Amino acid sequence: MANYVFGVDIGGTTVKLGLFDINGNVLDKWEIPTRTENSGTKILPDIAESIQAKIAEKGIAKDDVAGVGVGAPGPVDGDGVVHKAVNLGWNQFNLKKELTTLLDGMHVEGGNDANVAALGEMWKGGGQGHKNLVAVTLGTGVGGGIIINGKIMTGATGAGGEIGHIHVEDHETEACGCGNYGCLEEYASATGITRLANRALKASDKDSVLRNGEVSAKTVFDAVKAGDELAIEVAKQFGDYLGKGLGIIAGVINPEIFVIGGGVSKAGEVLFDYIKPSFEATAFHACKDTAFALATLGNDAGIYGAAKMVLD
Amino acid sequence: MANYVFGVDIGGTTVKLGLFDINGNVLDKWEIPTRTENSGTKILPDIAESIQAKIAEKGIAKDDVAGVGVGAPGPVDGDGVVHKAVNLGWNQFNLKKELTTLLDGMHVEGGNDANVAALGEMWKGGGQGHKNLVAVTLGTGVGGGIIINGKIMTGATGAGGEIGHIHVEDHETEACGCGNYGCLEEYASATGITRLANRALKASDKDSVLRNGEVSAKTVFDAVKAGDELAIEVAKQFGDYLGKGLGIIAGVINPEIFVIGGGVSKAGEVLFDYIKPSFEATAFHACKDTAFALATLGNDAGIYGAAKMVLD
Repeated sequence: MANYVFGVDIGGTTVKLGLFDINGNVLDKWEIPTRTENSGTKILPDIAESIQAKIAEKGIAKDDVAGVGVGAPGPVDGDGVVHKAVNLGWNQFNLKKELTTLLDGMHVEGGNDANVAALGEMWKGGGQGHKNLVAVTLGTGVGGGIIINGKIMTGATGAGGEIGHIHVEDHETEACGCGNYGCLEEYASATGITRLANRALKASDKDSVLRNGEVSAKTVFDAVKAGDELAIEVAKQFGDYLGKGLGIIAGVINPEIFVIGGGVSKAGEVLFDYIKPSFEATAFHACKDTAFALATLGNDAGIYGAAKMVLD
Repeated sequence: MANYVFGVDIGGTTVKLGLFDINGNVLDKWEIPTRTENSGTKILPDIAESIQAKIAEKGIAKDDVAGVGVGAPGPVDGDGVVHKAVNLGWNQFNLKKELTTLLDGMHVEGGNDANVAALGEMWKGGGQGHKNLVAVTLGTGVGGGIIINGKIMTGATGAGGEIGHIHVEDHETEACGCGNYGCLEEYASATGITRLANRALKASDKDSVLRNGEVSAKTVFDAVKAGDELAIEVAKQFGDYLGKGLGIIAGVINPEIFVIGGGVSKAGEVLFDYIKPSFEATAFHACKDTAFALATLGNDAGIYGAAKMVLD
């Protein structure tokens, strides 16, 4: 049995790579630029070259490498076919097959980056010890990844776990980036929290520290911690939407745990104070005890999950 | 390889049994009463006896039986443990183990009845040819079963696919049977449609055939087909809620197809005319093309799915 495995997380500007032992201890971690020119045709050769160089540098025997897992920012189906990755310039092609060829037949697995990060959090992060989890990433947008019995739930077209676009508000007048109205992402992302705060500031005359500086998810939750009433109202709105959304997801999936990550999650456990009331009010009784935890791997979740894909 | 398999669907008053060949052709179908007295302790022995009798009657060799699959009306986890089945008087016990013992070591699989029926519709019903589907049962309540890569998604506590209790209305004042407010079941079940119709009749003076007789899901959709304006309004409300709910589920699961069954589905394809507009308005773009079909196995879906569990 092989002793090493590589995890690769392809982002729009940087490719993160990690070398792990098969128990998930990271042995090395590095980055290379993502060359998106020429429809991203250089990305996989660059990755292959970097991995070959690392194998040589470390003096690892090739048959001591279990394989290479790759997370990519777009829908990737169960066969390793990328359907489109706009940020990389990629159209449809079989990532798994191409990278296997570039690596002389090495075992390759591919997945969507959010799904792969969810697997990473299950393996070595906030979801350790669980096999059924939903990872929720609260960043510029809202992303998600769903793990069922320890495996990524890819979905029919690779869109499984795209929970940022579930409908949670019937009366929204501003469109979401996706074109629909009332998506979870419009209220629970960093941008969404900023929007809720700006709306609240406009609708009320209430004094608030948010009137004296930058309005962002960070300043809102800093103000919440300082007891700012208007910020607390905004946090309640955020939590009502997200708690309701996660309550619905719990009713569909019945996960053991929600693992919350992304920039907004830096606010910490205070988030749960605002999410849980509406979660508990709306979730089906058999799902009300679903656990909540913070993600712990940060930007490394992707390389961990990518490596884990190979080992399953 | 064995040539025969049994499928068993335990209901509150009747146990349905089916003998199939391993290609899913039904060779025999019969029923026995469900004896729920004494905490339902007679149910499994009755089933075992009935199966042994059938094997003898047909002159089948025991090792020519692949096994017995069982669907039960309650949460059943991946190990075949029933967590509670109120209608049968059952508390927690290992159904799979007990029935295996009663059948002298025969291979037994157990699952929740709604999930098992979903598997049946995938195998031989409205979902044939698909591996990722959501079965929606619109009966007295709203039930569901989710199939991922050809397997039942059980969930952490056996509540996977309990889609009747996802939250779709923030302003409901009447409680759902589950204790929450605004569950999908309150609008999309037969009872829910009747409630919507009674509310509409009360709120409006509009003439309607529904004023002259029984108000039920059946009479509402009969009136819809006859062009009754008030009934059409009710159907729109029903479809708005269900379409929105299925849109959310599509965003989470990304299934290939929704298979709609249960008593309400007898209204036929007209249902889709009312479900699809709100589905398409709210579902994430990568999921908008999800197919819709009617269930075709009716009350036999359970025995088909139970048999299929054994063959997987």
